[in-house]
Amino acid sequence: MAMNGVLRPGHAALRVLDLKESMHFYGNVLGLQETGRDKQGRVYYKAWDERDHNSLVIRQADRAGIDFFAFKVDSPKTLEKLDSDLRAYGVPTERIPEGEMLETGPRVRFQIPSGHLIELYAQKTDVGNGMPYVNPEAWTPAAEKGIAPTRMDHCLLYGPDIEKVQKLFEEVLGFYLVEHIVLEDGRTDLAIWLSSSIKAHDIAFVRHPEPGKLHHVSFLLDSWEKVLRAADLMSMNRVSIDIGPTRHGVTRGTTIYAFDPSGNRFETFCGGYQTYPDCQPIKWTMDEVGAGVFYHERKLNERFLAVVT
Amino acid sequence: MAMNGVLRPGHAALRVLDLKESMHFYGNVLGLQETGRDKQGRVYYKAWDERDHNSLVIRQADRAGIDFFAFKVDSPKTLEKLDSDLRAYGVPTERIPEGEMLETGPRVRFQIPSGHLIELYAQKTDVGNGMPYVNPEAWTPAAEKGIAPTRMDHCLLYGPDIEKVQKLFEEVLGFYLVEHIVLEDGRTDLAIWLSSSIKAHDIAFVRHPEPGKLHHVSFLLDSWEKVLRAADLMSMNRVSIDIGPTRHGVTRGTTIYAFDPSGNRFETFCGGYQTYPDCQPIKWTMDEVGAGVFYHERKLNERFLAVVT
Amino acid sequence: MAMNGVLRPGHAALRVLDLKESMHFYGNVLGLQETGRDKQGRVYYKAWDERDHNSLVIRQADRAGIDFFAFKVDSPKTLEKLDSDLRAYGVPTERIPEGEMLETGPRVRFQIPSGHLIELYAQKTDVGNGMPYVNPEAWTPAAEKGIAPTRMDHCLLYGPDIEKVQKLFEEVLGFYLVEHIVLEDGRTDLAIWLSSSIKAHDIAFVRHPEPGKLHHVSFLLDSWEKVLRAADLMSMNRVSIDIGPTRHGVTRGTTIYAFDPSGNRFETFCGGYQTYPDCQPIKWTMDEVGAGVFYHERKLNERFLAVVT
Amino acid sequence: MAMNGVLRPGHAALRVLDLKESMHFYGNVLGLQETGRDKQGRVYYKAWDERDHNSLVIRQADRAGIDFFAFKVDSPKTLEKLDSDLRAYGVPTERIPEGEMLETGPRVRFQIPSGHLIELYAQKTDVGNGMPYVNPEAWTPAAEKGIAPTRMDHCLLYGPDIEKVQKLFEEVLGFYLVEHIVLEDGRTDLAIWLSSSIKAHDIAFVRHPEPGKLHHVSFLLDSWEKVLRAADLMSMNRVSIDIGPTRHGVTRGTTIYAFDPSGNRFETFCGGYQTYPDCQPIKWTMDEVGAGVFYHERKLNERFLAVVT
Repeated sequence: MAMNGVLRPGHAALRVLDLKESMHFYGNVLGLQETGRDKQGRVYYKAWDERDHNSLVIRQADRAGIDFFAFKVDSPKTLEKLDSDLRAYGVPTERIPEGEMLETGPRVRFQIPSGHLIELYAQKTDVGNGMPYVNPEAWTPAAEKGIAPTRMDHCLLYGPDIEKVQKLFEEVLGFYLVEHIVLEDGRTDLAIWLSSSIKAHDIAFVRHPEPGKLHHVSFLLDSWEKVLRAADLMSMNRVSIDIGPTRHGVTRGTTIYAFDPSGNRFETFCGGYQTYPDCQPIKWTMDEVGAGVFYHERKLNERFLAVVT
Repeated sequence: MAMNGVLRPGHAALRVLDLKESMHFYGNVLGLQETGRDKQGRVYYKAWDERDHNSLVIRQADRAGIDFFAFKVDSPKTLEKLDSDLRAYGVPTERIPEGEMLETGPRVRFQIPSGHLIELYAQKTDVGNGMPYVNPEAWTPAAEKGIAPTRMDHCLLYGPDIEKVQKLFEEVLGFYLVEHIVLEDGRTDLAIWLSSSIKAHDIAFVRHPEPGKLHHVSFLLDSWEKVLRAADLMSMNRVSIDIGPTRHGVTRGTTIYAFDPSGNRFETFCGGYQTYPDCQPIKWTMDEVGAGVFYHERKLNERFLAVVT
Repeated sequence: MAMNGVLRPGHAALRVLDLKESMHFYGNVLGLQETGRDKQGRVYYKAWDERDHNSLVIRQADRAGIDFFAFKVDSPKTLEKLDSDLRAYGVPTERIPEGEMLETGPRVRFQIPSGHLIELYAQKTDVGNGMPYVNPEAWTPAAEKGIAPTRMDHCLLYGPDIEKVQKLFEEVLGFYLVEHIVLEDGRTDLAIWLSSSIKAHDIAFVRHPEPGKLHHVSFLLDSWEKVLRAADLMSMNRVSIDIGPTRHGVTRGTTIYAFDPSGNRFETFCGGYQTYPDCQPIKWTMDEVGAGVFYHERKLNERFLAVVT
Repeated sequence: MAMNGVLRPGHAALRVLDLKESMHFYGNVLGLQETGRDKQGRVYYKAWDERDHNSLVIRQADRAGIDFFAFKVDSPKTLEKLDSDLRAYGVPTERIPEGEMLETGPRVRFQIPSGHLIELYAQKTDVGNGMPYVNPEAWTPAAEKGIAPTRMDHCLLYGPDIEKVQKLFEEVLGFYLVEHIVLEDGRTDLAIWLSSSIKAHDIAFVRHPEPGKLHHVSFLLDSWEKVLRAADLMSMNRVSIDIGPTRHGVTRGTTIYAFDPSGNRFETFCGGYQTYPDCQPIKWTMDEVGAGVFYHERKLNERFLAVVT
């Protein structure tokens, strides 16, 4: 968690084209646990080892994409402070009342220069991970239903003005830059990976003319063998794989990119080194960007830059 | 890192009985990288993926054990503040000047109620992990010399008054309790696992009558397969294994406990779940303590409680 | 398979003390698939990736242990030839009629000098592994129920006169010696590992005064990570673990030894090198026998030699 | 090994365009051990866990490709018998004298209908795997130089008349069909996987108009994690990867295809199920051939069918 009280990615809200088909995908194939449905028709999910009520919310819409992405903060007091800090920084904020999302406290919502809606909140009901808080087992059978990631880990968003986004995340939210890809001019970043913790990324951005686009939401797996199992399950379930299993140069994590039934890209991810704010950022130049993104292939595929929702 | 600026375990200083034999062990068998020797005769090591100059220091002495354990903080300003906070809390501090340890800035040293010396510091020279900060490869051949952990991860210390230790770490240093073992009285903790980050532990304590004792220093591995490789290398090198490969119930990490040539226990550790300060601590009761410590065996071995240095 | 037509371990018939409890263990914990029950009250199991109808049969009895262990041969013609060869070698054989075991053809049964009953048979109904023979997936959800080994792999039997057993397996059945432990006299084998294939063992024997004893039946796992998963499931289900996860020096396989509810030892095993009849056998001497049996511990535990059923 | 005495793939002889560059590749990147050079300028290699003197031989030539592929048989007597059987079957054989290849006995060479030269031999000097035959360790440091496969495992050859090849391998050499891909006519095989052991393939063929072509020689790895390590080392050494890490539907093995500096494709392979001659072959139809070859992608890439040497 960042030193200003931002804990972690809390929830992602996605638009899907067919709710029923998507519920099959997120519940049975990706293997998230459905934790509720609200009056708006949204369906709520959590990964098995998360304790808070939800980390992914889907709703039916005419086009795919992301509605908003949220971070949990450590207390209502921090929420108030960050709301105030954001406004002082010149970022208008909106207050979403408690209960607008199931089991979730009040949220502070704001738009960042890349066109995305980001939220902060301090409260979400602890529903546990299926094991008691006294003398738990190491895992539960629920950990083996579908791909079954342990957590929603991060997202990668596409939009303009990512240098302004970086400044906002660093100066107000306490994130720090872990890696970046620099364009041929040697000054402008094509992509930035930001952490609010010791993870190699909690959120990342790629410069893109169209605002508010989603590249992927990422889900955490425990091992490279579980990445293989995920790929097998994707094949069995005819999930469209973009690339993988492979490794990223950036973060060194192992990965599969694939698409949900609406075309939203998701990632099943493992590893990534531990990092800290005192670590010098790692820089990738355009002549080696291929190795940075896909370490084994050492070249980008067209889809990585072009296909977003 | 904690919200008050404590980043991570920075260095452990161990006493060994025979320096030459220990240098073979730490350099060739455990596979740390020697980074220097000082006028006092101390030898400095870092794990291959650490960037700071050192994380383990050994010196020859008549009896094994730990001299001190340190945490890096994010800035000199934080160091000053925490020094002041410690004194305000009633903990006398000592200032060790820059350079007393190689490539290390000024340190604030203090004794905690369990009898151990803890240090804080803000500066240690970045010597890199053997890969450039521009377009690095995913790892280096150095990552395969000996057991070759990626990082020094945490330590477990034995001593009295651990409830006072917990209070100090929480209230001054910003750590939080992740798991604990409660004695039969239902109130007194036998053991506590504390985090200053999202790791399941950055330091841990077991209640013990004799102050200042070391249970183990732990080194991080990337995978369960590397835990197997570590056990194989221990066997090849006739390292005395205490227990493992196995899994802990506490933290769920996979592990081997073994002894350096002087009898200091060390751990090669992988995994452990991600945790945050808003997570309810997990409690172990004495009837299930065996499963908490050694998940597969479900019982403690005598050595776990009795053998410390 | 051996050059004389002996294919592989086909079935093991075990005695259990409580059938219901054992059915829970073999079906739900070990995760074998129940394929039938016969009029004698025996229950039949196969591992998920085996195609033949059964590989383990259990019956209720007053004491635990093994009734018989069988090898499948490649044809009825080979069965007749080996029956004839056995009798020519001086080994009386008994013919068990087709159907005495479910879905199993006629069996040739004989007693070996260690006191065990061994069977040969040529026919067992192909019930498949749950996937079609045309365009199958890589695995099925059934591969994740309980520990879920892929195959029954081998057994280790205790009894006298193992040099005579070795001669019989080599000269009549076409097995070859892969590894052996030699007693202090430098001539007498304490233990022998025999292969009829390229596996490091299809059957093994330890010299023991009491005839006809079972040390363990072994089940095959795909990876060291599945060995960890097996240990976790044993802990969750309070299975009594003898030792492991660890590695054998002999065969280099990774392993857990544990006990079924009746005290019959079983093994979940992964790996072991590929070997061939032209490979020189590997010899272990008594001063290093510990490393041969348990590579990480480098010493035998008492149970390994003493506890058999 | 087959029941007629064919043990295993013994050696592959490849042509390379630049010997020095290739020696760097096979010795340092793939991590085979150089075991000799002969007067013809050929360089000999073995994988670390093989005990025979060589399993790969390279020579400089104007075009890449395979000169011959050989199987070891269990005895000189078997060699004579199979030579005689081949001639009786109508296949002319040539006798290559002992010593023409280093440390290798007389070889029986013959051309198969696909245009390839196949050899049989009974003798190759046992040089060991770097560990003693008495009380060995589990592996040696040599097992970690470069990609370091344990064995040369199999090859895939392209050429015409593969139904005649299959008949020859089955009827004379004792191989059996494990899997096959059937063309749209429902009768003609596009590809066949043949085993002389319990491996899912010891050799394979794809129907192709041009005779005598090489698709790949395959090298065995112990685990999926070692497949990842192989891919990392390929990237570090700028080896051109064709596809992978991924899984085959056929054999279920995990794999990377890549190219040596001359354009000869090689594979680093792990797993594959155990099979036996009594197992019904698995059939793939052209509508699912993609999943058969590349299980995650579920489609062939052009290179798989077109690029051979």
